[in-house]
Amino acid sequence: MGTAAGGDGGHLLCAAAAEHKVNLTAQRPFAEVLRAGLAETFFPDDPFRGFGSLPPAERAWGGLKYFVPALEWAPRYTLGKFKYDLLAGVTIASLAIPQGISYAKLANLPPIIGLYSSFVPPLLYAVFGSSNNLAVGTVAAASLLLASIVEAEVPREDNPELYLQIFYTAAFFTGVIQTALGVFRLGLIVDFLSRSTITGFMGGTAAIIILQQLKGMLGMKHFTSKTDIISVVRSIFLYRDEWRWQSAVLGVCFLLFLLLSKQLRKKKPNLFWVSAIAPFMVVIIGGIFAFLVKGNEHGIPIVGDLKKGINPLSISQLTFTDKHVNTAVKAGFLSGILALAEGIAVGRSLALIKNEQIDGNKEMIAFGIMNIAGSCTSCYLTTGPFSKSAVNFHAGCRTPMSNVVMSVCIMLVLLFLAPLFKYTPLVALSSIIVVAMIGLIKVKEFLHLYRVDKFDFCICMVAFVGVVFFTMVIGLGASIGLSVIRALLHVARPTTCKLGSMAGGEIFCDVRHYPHARNIPNVLVLQLGSPIYFVNAGYFRERILRWVEDEESASKADGQDLQYVILDLGGVSSIDNTGIGMLGEVHKSLDRKGITVALTNPRLEVTEKLVLSGFIRDKVGKEWVFLTVKDAITACRYGLQRSRGKQEDSEV
Amino acid sequence: MGTAAGGDGGHLLCAAAAEHKVNLTAQRPFAEVLRAGLAETFFPDDPFRGFGSLPPAERAWGGLKYFVPALEWAPRYTLGKFKYDLLAGVTIASLAIPQGISYAKLANLPPIIGLYSSFVPPLLYAVFGSSNNLAVGTVAAASLLLASIVEAEVPREDNPELYLQIFYTAAFFTGVIQTALGVFRLGLIVDFLSRSTITGFMGGTAAIIILQQLKGMLGMKHFTSKTDIISVVRSIFLYRDEWRWQSAVLGVCFLLFLLLSKQLRKKKPNLFWVSAIAPFMVVIIGGIFAFLVKGNEHGIPIVGDLKKGINPLSISQLTFTDKHVNTAVKAGFLSGILALAEGIAVGRSLALIKNEQIDGNKEMIAFGIMNIAGSCTSCYLTTGPFSKSAVNFHAGCRTPMSNVVMSVCIMLVLLFLAPLFKYTPLVALSSIIVVAMIGLIKVKEFLHLYRVDKFDFCICMVAFVGVVFFTMVIGLGASIGLSVIRALLHVARPTTCKLGSMAGGEIFCDVRHYPHARNIPNVLVLQLGSPIYFVNAGYFRERILRWVEDEESASKADGQDLQYVILDLGGVSSIDNTGIGMLGEVHKSLDRKGITVALTNPRLEVTEKLVLSGFIRDKVGKEWVFLTVKDAITACRYGLQRSRGKQEDSEV
Repeated sequence: MGTAAGGDGGHLLCAAAAEHKVNLTAQRPFAEVLRAGLAETFFPDDPFRGFGSLPPAERAWGGLKYFVPALEWAPRYTLGKFKYDLLAGVTIASLAIPQGISYAKLANLPPIIGLYSSFVPPLLYAVFGSSNNLAVGTVAAASLLLASIVEAEVPREDNPELYLQIFYTAAFFTGVIQTALGVFRLGLIVDFLSRSTITGFMGGTAAIIILQQLKGMLGMKHFTSKTDIISVVRSIFLYRDEWRWQSAVLGVCFLLFLLLSKQLRKKKPNLFWVSAIAPFMVVIIGGIFAFLVKGNEHGIPIVGDLKKGINPLSISQLTFTDKHVNTAVKAGFLSGILALAEGIAVGRSLALIKNEQIDGNKEMIAFGIMNIAGSCTSCYLTTGPFSKSAVNFHAGCRTPMSNVVMSVCIMLVLLFLAPLFKYTPLVALSSIIVVAMIGLIKVKEFLHLYRVDKFDFCICMVAFVGVVFFTMVIGLGASIGLSVIRALLHVARPTTCKLGSMAGGEIFCDVRHYPHARNIPNVLVLQLGSPIYFVNAGYFRERILRWVEDEESASKADGQDLQYVILDLGGVSSIDNTGIGMLGEVHKSLDRKGITVALTNPRLEVTEKLVLSGFIRDKVGKEWVFLTVKDAITACRYGLQRSRGKQEDSEV
Repeated sequence: MGTAAGGDGGHLLCAAAAEHKVNLTAQRPFAEVLRAGLAETFFPDDPFRGFGSLPPAERAWGGLKYFVPALEWAPRYTLGKFKYDLLAGVTIASLAIPQGISYAKLANLPPIIGLYSSFVPPLLYAVFGSSNNLAVGTVAAASLLLASIVEAEVPREDNPELYLQIFYTAAFFTGVIQTALGVFRLGLIVDFLSRSTITGFMGGTAAIIILQQLKGMLGMKHFTSKTDIISVVRSIFLYRDEWRWQSAVLGVCFLLFLLLSKQLRKKKPNLFWVSAIAPFMVVIIGGIFAFLVKGNEHGIPIVGDLKKGINPLSISQLTFTDKHVNTAVKAGFLSGILALAEGIAVGRSLALIKNEQIDGNKEMIAFGIMNIAGSCTSCYLTTGPFSKSAVNFHAGCRTPMSNVVMSVCIMLVLLFLAPLFKYTPLVALSSIIVVAMIGLIKVKEFLHLYRVDKFDFCICMVAFVGVVFFTMVIGLGASIGLSVIRALLHVARPTTCKLGSMAGGEIFCDVRHYPHARNIPNVLVLQLGSPIYFVNAGYFRERILRWVEDEESASKADGQDLQYVILDLGGVSSIDNTGIGMLGEVHKSLDRKGITVALTNPRLEVTEKLVLSGFIRDKVGKEWVFLTVKDAITACRYGLQRSRGKQEDSEV
């Protein structure tokens, strides 16, 4: 067979190539397969590689450094680095104050909680976190999500204390869940939030958060606790007698100032710090203005009293009673996953620019620890928000030390300056939120998705529309559901294609993709893709048999006869018992039609199973398994020549 | 590039091959992609192909024939075929009587319902069914499943009439669901029942059904309504004063007789009819014996009164009240899916032997119609049970006419002979069930699974243990859940492998699989598999970067430098937006290390998306996309030579 000269392209057959056979004897022991499978599933980044060769003490130190990244960078910390971190830390602190107060208001919490949440968690992240660029703080989307879930169970109006307790408890569960996900290396749950889902969800959330700000911009006192666009618009017109033009005018001024500072940053990237401290400026200027004109009495509501002093302990406020624990777990789980997704994505994309590495599972543990600790010290959910981290990055941070600097700044504010923020007008906070949110509605990204992948666009729009018109949970859930269905459909309906010969029989390609690829007489080459298993085994059977029928009728029209079917398994990454059964059935069906089946290039995992199940020995036969399509076709041609020779002999 | 002579194997480069470039211009319009996607998802068998060229009248007739297969075979029916069908029909009727009564007892229903269920549904299946071999009737597993679900809500003891009504209603919903699945071409739901799940579930169900028969074998009157092994064993010992030795002795005799007849069939396949009518013989002999010795008074309980006459209408008994409709829907859905899975699998495996085709979606519609009609005519759930269909097949049936013959036989029995079956001893029915079930515990299949695929074995054992120790629903659910998790894991953790060169640089294979494959200096070739999308994009990124790091340190040890990474996309069947983003990030990371990325052999779907998203134009560059790994390596070598040339020039 290796010496048969076929090839209508006139090329001489490379004898060496044809003699390379599929290695059917490679069988890994079960323990090794299991170990490799578990390692790939849970340790795809193999964090401890290279440890094996070290002495035990160094190994332990290495392990400790793995879990506490601060031990890695702290000993090598220099004054030179600290200069950068100091600048970055002060900059993000100036952003943390308005953002902390704003997002706490968004979550219907006392504004001071927002400042508390920028003190303890960043300290812990600096010790356990692996990203050099992440700045820790509260986030808008998760704040609103938490508020919408908790509000539905325990309206804040009815019992503000219980409302706050459930927030602490939710943060506690968030921390526990995040730590557990990290410890059990289940980072892959976050993988189920696709980029399209996140884009749509973030855009939708930004839209409803902007709508929510109409309350502050118009200086209204009553508002709906629902988040969907219809309730919000109805509520704005229902209480239209509460509109205050003073607030609106001030709001528009602040908005223009913030938008201008953003424009400036786009035009002159060096002046990024102007847009970074602009929100802080708005708070200061707004506060002074409100103080001078006694805004509160003239239609400009202000934040109100802020207590001096650092975070009180809140461990005794965690509530685990039957009645509310479900709400807390639900809120904690959903907001925790969302916060993880944002934090890890932000950390990764910033690390990418500096060409650093982020370990997702380690990040989860860091987030988990900081949320557990936060829940005991009067903080609610924190993560690495995009806006703050980007500022941190642009301000030139070098290590997580910038988080420590921010933390110290916030501590000083809490100890000495907090009461001064009493006069901050609510409309200033609203305009800060609006400007932060506008950037999250990524119209360009939507258009890009529409152009590249209509299904991804659908997933994105379902999240957007679901969030805007229904609730955040519905939008997120529907979008994830659609993503998972799509994932399963990809598996359930994998592509198969017919290969034609190109380059004189050297290369074999999809005939749809390369219309000039030529048919191979009497032979049908099918390329299968994706894992073959119970979900798609039935489909593969139907599809292969249909290819064969189509080919048979086409062959008949040409006065020829289909005699060989070559299944190219190069793209089949795994196969299960149902899949092997399916191949057996296909083989049987084709056998009855007098068609010989050949296999080419099965991968290691597939070869192992096909050999173990006896499929190769009992059905196909070792001699019909080839390494390349070319070899298989050579064998088919040789067989055809022999059978024709026999026919001619018998006719003579 | 096509003329560069590299290749340490000393082979001349085939210029023709290197000049074949990836077709980047093939872009299908969106409408075509959508149409093709929908067609592949819902019409993988393309039932109406070849219709386009026919005149409208023929097309309509063809369509009608598609939906009513009887129109296909009836006009060509001959007396010759009828002889075979008559024999087969009478044989399966002799089996249908004891099985019908037994399985109705298993479902805690009046025995006559079992006979009713063998009259109407087979007639309908003969008209709408597409399998020539399937014999319609009730099935053991679904009967017990129905009983266990309904009994939990409405104990039969409390209200036997309502109990029966819920069975009818469940059959009605089963029919509606099955028809809908067929009409909407959602046959793929059945695909989620893997072969391993079915093997385990059937084995477990057979085991608990055998245990249930201890009631009949011991002539007991009281028994648990639960199905798990612990409740059953406890119940047997709790009521041990009810044990009757007369029943037990008779039962052992029947068992021996039935087992012997089965052995006979194995040894002499021609005498299959002996085992086929053996159950009927047991019923007749048992009945005569019980009548003669007045068994009922001597510890041999009998079936009791059976009313003469064919099925009464039961349409008025369907109950749709809020309270019970949930139970009926749940029971109908679960048993319906199970019945579909059994019916379609049986139809397919028998069709395979005769090399016929079965259309899964058409079968669903046929099953659906017969269950809806059945629910209105005092029948409960029916499908194509394995035992009866196998007998039908071995008796030589030619068309669904054998079902009509069976139906007529049952009608005659109902009209004239039903009261005679009053004396059938329950122990006879129990022994019939035990013998039928023993064959379903496929120990060999379990061992085969253990040998070939440990994970499949786990899925199978979860179903088995779940059914035996908990409930049937728990066993089935846990096993399906595990299967789906496995499917998602396959997608979430696809294989990547490093390719080495073989046959002097002609072939590139996995280095784990072919240990003698050689490294290519300065170049790393990675083969990616499976679709790339949001679920596995993160994993792919981690894994590719790890491969690169490992290769870098290995290269350094050899005093070399990794300069090119070739990603072989031949096995990647599709990619989504997140996946493209991941490739962009990988490209960026490698670019910073000074490593050039090349792509080889992207498939049509993948090429389309990579071009549309601008990834090829803006990131990789058209000149780094190749059709084969060989071409890509040639280009890398050429690049290496040039850069070395430059180095030498500058050194000079």
